[in-house]
Amino acid sequence: MRALAQNEDTIIALATPQGVGAIGVIRLSGKEAISITNAVFKGKDLTKQESHTIHFGTIRDGEKILDEVLVSLFIAPKSFTKENVIEISCHGSSYIIRQIIQLLIRKGARPAKPGEFTKRAFMHGQFDLAQAEAVADLINADSEAAHQTALSQMRGGFSDEIKRLREELIHFASMIELELDFGEEDVEFASREDLTNLVNRLLKVINALIQSFDLGNVIKNGVPTVIAGKPNAGKSTLLNALLNEEKAIVSDIAGTTRDFIEDEIIIGGIAFRFIDTAGLRETTDVIEAMGVERTQAKMKTASLIIYLFDLADTSIVEVNKEINLLENAGVPFLKLANKLDKADPTFIETLQGQHPDMMFLSAKDPEQVEKLKERILELVNLDKFKKGDTVVTNIRHYDSLLQTKNALTAVIEGIDNQVTNDFVAMDIRQSLHYLGEITGEITTDDLLANIFSKFCIGK
Amino acid sequence: MRALAQNEDTIIALATPQGVGAIGVIRLSGKEAISITNAVFKGKDLTKQESHTIHFGTIRDGEKILDEVLVSLFIAPKSFTKENVIEISCHGSSYIIRQIIQLLIRKGARPAKPGEFTKRAFMHGQFDLAQAEAVADLINADSEAAHQTALSQMRGGFSDEIKRLREELIHFASMIELELDFGEEDVEFASREDLTNLVNRLLKVINALIQSFDLGNVIKNGVPTVIAGKPNAGKSTLLNALLNEEKAIVSDIAGTTRDFIEDEIIIGGIAFRFIDTAGLRETTDVIEAMGVERTQAKMKTASLIIYLFDLADTSIVEVNKEINLLENAGVPFLKLANKLDKADPTFIETLQGQHPDMMFLSAKDPEQVEKLKERILELVNLDKFKKGDTVVTNIRHYDSLLQTKNALTAVIEGIDNQVTNDFVAMDIRQSLHYLGEITGEITTDDLLANIFSKFCIGK
Repeated sequence: MRALAQNEDTIIALATPQGVGAIGVIRLSGKEAISITNAVFKGKDLTKQESHTIHFGTIRDGEKILDEVLVSLFIAPKSFTKENVIEISCHGSSYIIRQIIQLLIRKGARPAKPGEFTKRAFMHGQFDLAQAEAVADLINADSEAAHQTALSQMRGGFSDEIKRLREELIHFASMIELELDFGEEDVEFASREDLTNLVNRLLKVINALIQSFDLGNVIKNGVPTVIAGKPNAGKSTLLNALLNEEKAIVSDIAGTTRDFIEDEIIIGGIAFRFIDTAGLRETTDVIEAMGVERTQAKMKTASLIIYLFDLADTSIVEVNKEINLLENAGVPFLKLANKLDKADPTFIETLQGQHPDMMFLSAKDPEQVEKLKERILELVNLDKFKKGDTVVTNIRHYDSLLQTKNALTAVIEGIDNQVTNDFVAMDIRQSLHYLGEITGEITTDDLLANIFSKFCIGK
Repeated sequence: MRALAQNEDTIIALATPQGVGAIGVIRLSGKEAISITNAVFKGKDLTKQESHTIHFGTIRDGEKILDEVLVSLFIAPKSFTKENVIEISCHGSSYIIRQIIQLLIRKGARPAKPGEFTKRAFMHGQFDLAQAEAVADLINADSEAAHQTALSQMRGGFSDEIKRLREELIHFASMIELELDFGEEDVEFASREDLTNLVNRLLKVINALIQSFDLGNVIKNGVPTVIAGKPNAGKSTLLNALLNEEKAIVSDIAGTTRDFIEDEIIIGGIAFRFIDTAGLRETTDVIEAMGVERTQAKMKTASLIIYLFDLADTSIVEVNKEINLLENAGVPFLKLANKLDKADPTFIETLQGQHPDMMFLSAKDPEQVEKLKERILELVNLDKFKKGDTVVTNIRHYDSLLQTKNALTAVIEGIDNQVTNDFVAMDIRQSLHYLGEITGEITTDDLLANIFSKFCIGK
C-alpha cells in the first residue's frame, strides 16, 4: 500500500492560515504540479528549473494578471510528499488566493482533502503513521513539553522503539510458523523459554509506555486544575495574577500572540487547564451551590486542587472543614492562604501549627506568585517526564498498546497452559498486528481516512 | 533618502496570518539576515548558498530542536527589499513561530514595525510610494474591480502617468529657474504661451484623475446601497437571496472562504455595501421609526437606493408616497415590486402605467434575482470604469492631486496677471512638490511613518 508511484492526481490547497497577512502560500502536489503551474505562470519555464529553486513571475488567467508571485519548486522525490511539489507565495489577500486556486483547479488540479499532503508523504514512505500523527500534534502544541514530545515523535523516537519490539517478535513468530509447517513432527525451532523471556521483556516495555499515557495526556492536554475556595478568597485575583504574567510574556512580540486561552497557564513548559473557572468569577459560593457530593465528584476529575482561603476573613474551624471536604478527592492538593499582608500573626501561627504544608502568600505580590508556580510544579510531580523519554500522547497508540498487551499476555498464558502451536502463533500474530498499527505497517483504508481527516486542509 | 545602503539592522516578522494552518512563514531582511539564521540552522551552510534556493534543516536553540524547516534564501539585491532576505517555512504552530522569532531576536534580529519590509523596498528603489501603497490595497481587495485597480497601481500604471506629467513640468521649471538666474536681464527661455498650454493640458489630466476618485472610492470601498421599504416587503429575503448565491460561490473551495462580510455583495466584480441592514432585519418600519428627515439624510449617503414593496400588501397611493419621499435624495433609484407570484394583474398594470421603470420580481426566483443584479449594475453606471483606465483610489493621492491643481491654477493666473518670474517659479515648484509626494520623489519622515504604519506587520 505504501509503494504508490507518483501517478495520482495533483492536489491543491492553501497551506497558510486564512486571515490578514503579508503573504499566503498555495501548495500543489502530484505528477502534474509543475506543468499545471507553468501553464499559468509568466516568468522562467518552470519545467526546466532545478529542484529547490525559487522563481519570480506573474500568475495569469489568460491576459489578466492575478498576482505577482514567487514560485518554489520541489522535484520528486525531493519534497515533503516525495511527489512534484509547487509552493506559490502570493499576496495575502483571500480574493487573490481564491482566484489562483480556482484557476489552477480549472487547469487540472483538484482541491486537497484534509491531511492529504501528509497522507501522500506517508504513502510514499517519507515517514510512518506515528510520525505523521505527530505533525498534527506539533502544530497544535502550545507548551514546551507538548512541543518537545510531538517533535520527538515526529522525528521517529517513538516509532523506533515500537519497530524494535516488533522486529524481535517477528523473529520468533517466523520460527513458530515454521514449526507449524512441520505439522505433526513435533520439532521446536523457537525455544519456549526464550519466547517467554522475550514476551515478558516486551510486556515490561509496553506497560511502561501504557503508563506514560497519563503523563502524555497531561503534556498534550494540560493538567486539569481546580481552584477551590469561598467567594472573595481571591480566586479570581490569583488566576489573573497567573494569567497576566503569562499574557505579558506571550504578547511581547507583536503579531505572534497565540490565541489566548483564558483558562490555561503555562508553568515550567507544562499547561495547566483550570476547570470551572466560570464559577471562579462568580461571587456565589461554588461549593455551597453545587453541594458536597457534586463538588467532590468534580474534584476527582482534576489532577491538582488548589484550595484558597482569605486569611483576613475566615476561622480555623471553617478552614479545616473545607480542607477535609476537598482532601478526600485523593488528588494532589495545595493549601493556599491568601491576603498574607492583612492577616493576624496569631492566626497564621495556629494554621502553620496544624498545617505545616500550608503556603502563605499575597496574590498581588509577583515574587510570591512566582514561588507558588514552583510549588505547583513540584506537586504535579512531572519529574517523571525526563527529556528524551518516550511518552505516549495519542489515544490511538494507547489503545493499540493495550491490545498488544492483551495479546502478549495470551501468548504467555498459552505457553504456560501448553496450548498447541497454532494458538500461540495466532496470539503472536495478533500482537504483531496491533504493534504494526501504531507505525502504519498494518493499515486499513478506514484507519487512514480516520487519522488524516482530523488534519487541517493544506497539511 | 532613497539610496540607503544595506547596512541597517536586520528585521524579523511573521509574514503569514496567525491562526491554524499547515505552515507559517517567518521573514528576515537586512545585511545579517543570512548569518543570523545560519547561526541557529543545522543543515547546509546558508552563507555559501546561491540566491533563490531552498534548504531543508532544523532550527536549534543550543541542543534543543525547535522545528524542521525549509529556508528560502534571497541574496541582495535580488529580493523584495533589495537586502538579504530569509524566509523560514516552519510548522504552523503559534508556539513554534514564537519560539523561532524569539530565538532569532536573541541572535541579533529585531521585530519589524508595520510595513517595514515594504518601506525598505521603497527606500531601496524597488518601487515608488504609490506602488508601495498599492500593495496594502491589493491585500485588502475583495472584489475584482478593487483587485485589478490595486494590481495596476502596484505594477506602476498610475505612477507612470504622474511621473510623465511631472517630467514635462520639470523641463519648464528649469527654464524659468534659469531666467531667475539671469535676474534683471529680462530673458525668456520658457515661452509663456507654451507653458500655459502645458499647464492647461496637465490640469485636464489631473482633473480627470481627481474625478476618477469617486469611482475609485466605489471600487475600493464598495457602492453604499440602501434597501428601503416597509416591514414584510421582503427586504431581508431579497438580501439573503443576493447573499446566499454569493456564499455558494465563495465557499466552493474549502479553506479559502473569505471572512464573509454579512452586508456586502459582489456584483459584476463590484462590491455593494448595504447600509443599515440591521434595520432591514427588524420588523418595525425603519422609515417610520427614523422620521422623514433622518431617512432622507441617510438616503443621501447612499450611492444607490433600492425601494422594495410588497405587491400583495400595498396600495398605489402608499407606493407613490414612499417613492416621492425617497426619490428626492437625488441618488440612482430602483423601484422594485416584490412577490410577483402573489400579485393582482390589474394592480401590476396600474403600476406599470405610472412607473414604466419599475421592476417586478419574486425574490425567491433565482433567475429574476439574476436579472435584478444586471439592473443594479446598469444603475450605478460603472461603464465609466474601463479596464486599463487609471483610477485614483487613495485619499492621500486625491489630496495631493487637489493641491497640485490649486498650484497649477495659480501658475495660469500668475501668467495671466503677468506676475514676476519668481512667483510663477514658486507655484511651479509647489506643483512639482505635490506631484512628487504621490510617488514619493518628495517625502518626509512623517509622511512615510504615516503611510507604512497602516500596513500589517510582516509586510
